[in-house]
Amino acid sequence: MSLPLPASYCIATYRCYDEKADFHKKATGIAVGLTVGSWTDLPEARKAEMEKHLGRVVSVDVHEPAAGESLGERYADIRIAYPDVNFSRDIPALLVTVFGKLSMDGRIKLTDLTFSPSFLDAFPGPRFGLQGVRDLLGVQDRPLLMSIFKSVIGHDLPALREQFYQQALGGVDLIKDDEILFENPLTPIERRVEVCMEAAEQAGRETGQKLLYAANLTGPTFGLVEQARRAIGAGANALLFNVLAYGFDALAELSRHPDVNVPIMAHPALAGAFYPSAYHGISANVLLGKLMRLAGADLVLFPSPYGSVVMPLEENMAIKDALLTTEASGYVTGGRAADQLSLRTSFPVPSAGIHPGLVPWILRDFGHDVVVNAGGGVHGHPMGAAAGGRAFRQAIDGCLSGIPLRTYAETHPELQAAIQAWGIKE
Amino acid sequence: MSLPLPASYCIATYRCYDEKADFHKKATGIAVGLTVGSWTDLPEARKAEMEKHLGRVVSVDVHEPAAGESLGERYADIRIAYPDVNFSRDIPALLVTVFGKLSMDGRIKLTDLTFSPSFLDAFPGPRFGLQGVRDLLGVQDRPLLMSIFKSVIGHDLPALREQFYQQALGGVDLIKDDEILFENPLTPIERRVEVCMEAAEQAGRETGQKLLYAANLTGPTFGLVEQARRAIGAGANALLFNVLAYGFDALAELSRHPDVNVPIMAHPALAGAFYPSAYHGISANVLLGKLMRLAGADLVLFPSPYGSVVMPLEENMAIKDALLTTEASGYVTGGRAADQLSLRTSFPVPSAGIHPGLVPWILRDFGHDVVVNAGGGVHGHPMGAAAGGRAFRQAIDGCLSGIPLRTYAETHPELQAAIQAWGIKE
Repeated sequence: MSLPLPASYCIATYRCYDEKADFHKKATGIAVGLTVGSWTDLPEARKAEMEKHLGRVVSVDVHEPAAGESLGERYADIRIAYPDVNFSRDIPALLVTVFGKLSMDGRIKLTDLTFSPSFLDAFPGPRFGLQGVRDLLGVQDRPLLMSIFKSVIGHDLPALREQFYQQALGGVDLIKDDEILFENPLTPIERRVEVCMEAAEQAGRETGQKLLYAANLTGPTFGLVEQARRAIGAGANALLFNVLAYGFDALAELSRHPDVNVPIMAHPALAGAFYPSAYHGISANVLLGKLMRLAGADLVLFPSPYGSVVMPLEENMAIKDALLTTEASGYVTGGRAADQLSLRTSFPVPSAGIHPGLVPWILRDFGHDVVVNAGGGVHGHPMGAAAGGRAFRQAIDGCLSGIPLRTYAETHPELQAAIQAWGIKE
Repeated sequence: MSLPLPASYCIATYRCYDEKADFHKKATGIAVGLTVGSWTDLPEARKAEMEKHLGRVVSVDVHEPAAGESLGERYADIRIAYPDVNFSRDIPALLVTVFGKLSMDGRIKLTDLTFSPSFLDAFPGPRFGLQGVRDLLGVQDRPLLMSIFKSVIGHDLPALREQFYQQALGGVDLIKDDEILFENPLTPIERRVEVCMEAAEQAGRETGQKLLYAANLTGPTFGLVEQARRAIGAGANALLFNVLAYGFDALAELSRHPDVNVPIMAHPALAGAFYPSAYHGISANVLLGKLMRLAGADLVLFPSPYGSVVMPLEENMAIKDALLTTEASGYVTGGRAADQLSLRTSFPVPSAGIHPGLVPWILRDFGHDVVVNAGGGVHGHPMGAAAGGRAFRQAIDGCLSGIPLRTYAETHPELQAAIQAWGIKE
């Protein structure tokens, strides 16, 4: 079943598991129940008025279990179109409409969301986006390199400054706060930003590089703009934000606020409460892909498929598509992420467990438009954090020159040491 | 393994599934990794300084699968104490600390959270709470009755007014907006509140009852206080809020804001993205119980164990405990919810699929401190919505008098009709 639709419906795709449900009936129940409430018992005259509010079943693809498979694996992919006229132009309204009550209705997962042009129109998207971040750094021709503060809780400003300086010396492009560093007496955000930006400048005189420092934006929701102003006033040239702890709308409002004029990096903290189950929650491509870009994240972190905290490669690629696609195609019939072409793209940042021996895989899977992001892979380098950064830059340079890492390492001692420590993924 | 702890740690409990993990090692990894980052390699002098920032393993209970069970069912309940000194006094900071990165680390679910006295101190909790809501309504001696607007999208003000009036006539104590009703040209919040409160007054002259109308608070996050002011200015005497779409902190800030001086009713929209999986997410007692009360919800809706959208009774009872407990006990060794005794209690509102024939079960499971909440059970009554409300009030009265519903129905035609339509749950 498929309907031609005008351009004013957002479409949700659900995967719905049930051993015996009539999935077509269920789909109709969703389309009616989450919009006009009831339909068949309406008088005809009223139907004409209400039709523009009625949800539509776009498609129902039932997957019967193959012989021998457990009955539990019977499922359907159901696509429902929701009229924009029913909800306001914000992400809470859309999510509550398409997956508010429905999220609690059995084994059902929200696997895709397609935004109508008129819904999208309300979202400026990332203020800087991938290209804007490249422009700020003056780096157009290679993947970027980011490092993450480690063990910062309980440390004072001089310790943070030194850690920042050592990371910066290694030639990283971005440094991010630990997402669990909140306002605290030892390293309050303004003082932290001041000493770190000072360290960035000092390192920059050695490396000749620019650097973005994403300071962790935390605290009460209604004070986030003021907190961002304080950080930016102190010199922060980027912000880290735990989006899922505050809701997508907080990000959307921050990213469009005139005073928050620096790139925002979205951290995936709490994302594992949503995406990993096959039967419940919200898929990673929606949660960490489409909605992050829609809400205006300039860079998006997510668990890489390589390291310690693992997400399957297929899901990583779906996030990448959602963040990077700019190809036009029909928004109803088009595939994943084909609807967001009007927005700036967001930098994908696959994270966790990354060491230089993984760089060829990251570039193979993500191309050049990626941020290589490391914590332990920088700080745990046998020759220190500065060497850790250099080893990554060497790994990137080697890959871009088409030289095997092992060969490139022969003339690059930092990379050599990293490979001795962590190996090369084959 | 168990440690005596000073009163400045919040404790998270995780259920962690793994076929072969060393759960004690994993617990230590969490306690160190999510606090100071590293421990064993610190110099002794530094350890003395850092000790107050170090997370502690409170307990590790390993459940080996019984013979014959699938290996996949090997799990451990791990309790970790996190020093308050590491995070700010807000729910995003606590959640990001205890379940930010960790949520993405395999099959792990956050099953309990215990707040330290010093963390709790920062939260005033519900402004009205259960007793405050009773006082506003002047109803002390029975469960309350709430009805929900149905099919409001696409309807105009006169239609809403009439629907409100019919509901109110039946003797309900509270009426809530549909959670998917957002700002719209047909029924903008101020006009909607005006006509509904007018209808409430009109009905009140017939019923002699007071009534709370929870208008749906929606729109941009940073505009929520202003939107609440508008609704309250127009006469709203309660607010409905889709907490999980905005984050717990938005509720916490609204509930303590001096201008938001009406009860707030928390809707569980999106909750099914978190709680139903055994292996991932956040348990219902934490999500819809402890955190809602901590953040200041005066009433909390959640899926009942009886109706169409079902949650197991055990989880319902855990939510009830979290919302209602006032008994003191040690916060470390005490059971569930024993930590929140200093906060006002929140009214539990088990919802979905409720009809009068379920009222004896609701009262059996929840006692008198419960809101009986119905949508279709009011509007779908064969004699109309006013009769629907009356049938519920009769069912409640019958139960409180200890008279079996069937007997009570003999002299109460509305209840009789409801029982004929939906039966009595045996």
